[in-house]
Amino acid sequence: MSGRYFIGLDIGGTTMKSAVVTDAGRLASQPVSRPTEPSRGPAHGVAMMLELVREATTACGISLESVAAIGVATPGPVDLVRGVMLNPPNLKPWRDVPVREAIAAEFSKPTAFQNDANAAALGESWVGAGRGRRSFVLFTLGTGIGGGIVLDGRLLEGAHGHGGELGHVKIVPDGRLCACGRRGCLEAYVNAGAVVARMREALADAGPPGERWRGEFTAEQVFAAAEAGDATAAGVIADTARLLGVAAANVMHVVDPEVIAFGGGMAAAGSRFLDAIRRAARENAFAVPAERCEIRAAELGTTAGIIGAAACARQLIAS
Amino acid sequence: MSGRYFIGLDIGGTTMKSAVVTDAGRLASQPVSRPTEPSRGPAHGVAMMLELVREATTACGISLESVAAIGVATPGPVDLVRGVMLNPPNLKPWRDVPVREAIAAEFSKPTAFQNDANAAALGESWVGAGRGRRSFVLFTLGTGIGGGIVLDGRLLEGAHGHGGELGHVKIVPDGRLCACGRRGCLEAYVNAGAVVARMREALADAGPPGERWRGEFTAEQVFAAAEAGDATAAGVIADTARLLGVAAANVMHVVDPEVIAFGGGMAAAGSRFLDAIRRAARENAFAVPAERCEIRAAELGTTAGIIGAAACARQLIAS
Repeated sequence: MSGRYFIGLDIGGTTMKSAVVTDAGRLASQPVSRPTEPSRGPAHGVAMMLELVREATTACGISLESVAAIGVATPGPVDLVRGVMLNPPNLKPWRDVPVREAIAAEFSKPTAFQNDANAAALGESWVGAGRGRRSFVLFTLGTGIGGGIVLDGRLLEGAHGHGGELGHVKIVPDGRLCACGRRGCLEAYVNAGAVVARMREALADAGPPGERWRGEFTAEQVFAAAEAGDATAAGVIADTARLLGVAAANVMHVVDPEVIAFGGGMAAAGSRFLDAIRRAARENAFAVPAERCEIRAAELGTTAGIIGAAACARQLIAS
Repeated sequence: MSGRYFIGLDIGGTTMKSAVVTDAGRLASQPVSRPTEPSRGPAHGVAMMLELVREATTACGISLESVAAIGVATPGPVDLVRGVMLNPPNLKPWRDVPVREAIAAEFSKPTAFQNDANAAALGESWVGAGRGRRSFVLFTLGTGIGGGIVLDGRLLEGAHGHGGELGHVKIVPDGRLCACGRRGCLEAYVNAGAVVARMREALADAGPPGERWRGEFTAEQVFAAAEAGDATAAGVIADTARLLGVAAANVMHVVDPEVIAFGGGMAAAGSRFLDAIRRAARENAFAVPAERCEIRAAELGTTAGIIGAAACARQLIAS
């Protein structure tokens, strides 16, 4: 094998994943993974990260010496300057974990650190939905709503590391309570939990629910029911798409990128959902960006974090 | 006199203004002005612009040969690529006026063309509220609500010229009708006309209005009454500040600049209004940007357009 290699490490609330990524943005082998087990504490978690970096090189059949740089993507909030995970709600009780330093010290490699949505945006911009474009914005839809903005190949991190926090742009004054503690954020309306909560509210308005909606259910089930013709579910999904379309139009009026992409679990819901987002964005944006700004599905799927982390690593040694 | 000179030309719906600006961003003499008189048509308007450029050099006592470049700032919508004013609502019946080409052809000088809010943002970033900062966002408050985003000294124009259209970010789904034809834009709530309209609504809710509010009144009068203790006016102004604070918090979660400034006629309302905007921004933003992102008054006042246009001219020949 020739060329440069990077290691991308993607830390999630449930699973951490890693793989070797080529200089062309391809996985050099299948990703390896381990459970994150946040309850076992950050020292255990960091030890597993180091282990996973070694396993990724083994799985790929290369030596650590061949690795030019390592990138790690973690859930927010993060301190980008210090390379520290602060107090991620999905990784309790982790707090102030100096991930970048731990990895850099262990492997003596340039190590990039980024929040997961920003990393995914840079990855998509490199070899996914935004490749070849000068400006690109990614929304990640899941348990949380994340965002990343790439301008001329660089992430818009912001002066204090809060650039591209698109899930916490307020879309309804004094609206629904968000996990962040404020009201009316996009995330409070369209994340997976909000889809379930709004479905419950719609069902309550519609009278006694049918059998299938009586116990626990997931956002995926609401999406599936909407596809299958359930009118209540279809209404909730239509509202979700409408609000995401408004958020996309707002991005057009602030950043005006060439491409806006939607990724994450919920974006896998299919082309009808994306079409509804597109329609709402066009209705809410000025004619020129409405016509010219492309709204697309993200392309890297579950490897976005790994490839994105590798993209950050690659950029680190290029700059 | 020594050093390079630029001419800044600021086209408004009522008046057009121009002055010679030094390489340090200072006016080299008092601005000269002429009525825009849009009803006399764009050919007349463009002829007045050319005249005004000459008058600015005369007022300054320099020759046209000493001018390195010319910049012109105009109300939107504009086509930045072609340097054309499209169909500005305040300059009817002007339509598709190729301002940049007309000026460049007349004077054989590099000529920059920019919308007025973007130009003002670049000017403030150069020698005003954003000087010395790497990232800066300006809101201009007046008949319209404009915006401009400056990152590392460059305007974020966007892929299709719609970057920084901060007046048309939607803050209320299906909200008040905006002059742009869409609903719920920031401008529909906080521009001068909206302040008057919301005051009328608040008066109607409060019963028969006192003498002073029976006929026509202006946004300035609402601001003045609020300062003087009129409870109804104070409520309208408090709402205006609250919505601008939400807009500022949203900017912190997308761009996360070092400084956000407010300029334009309404921003002259005073420090209490700005304090109320700051409070609302802090309540609605994440702790880190809420604490660290400065919210300030713009500094260039009525010369922002001229200095901003000159800043665009200067950047044109630097790049």
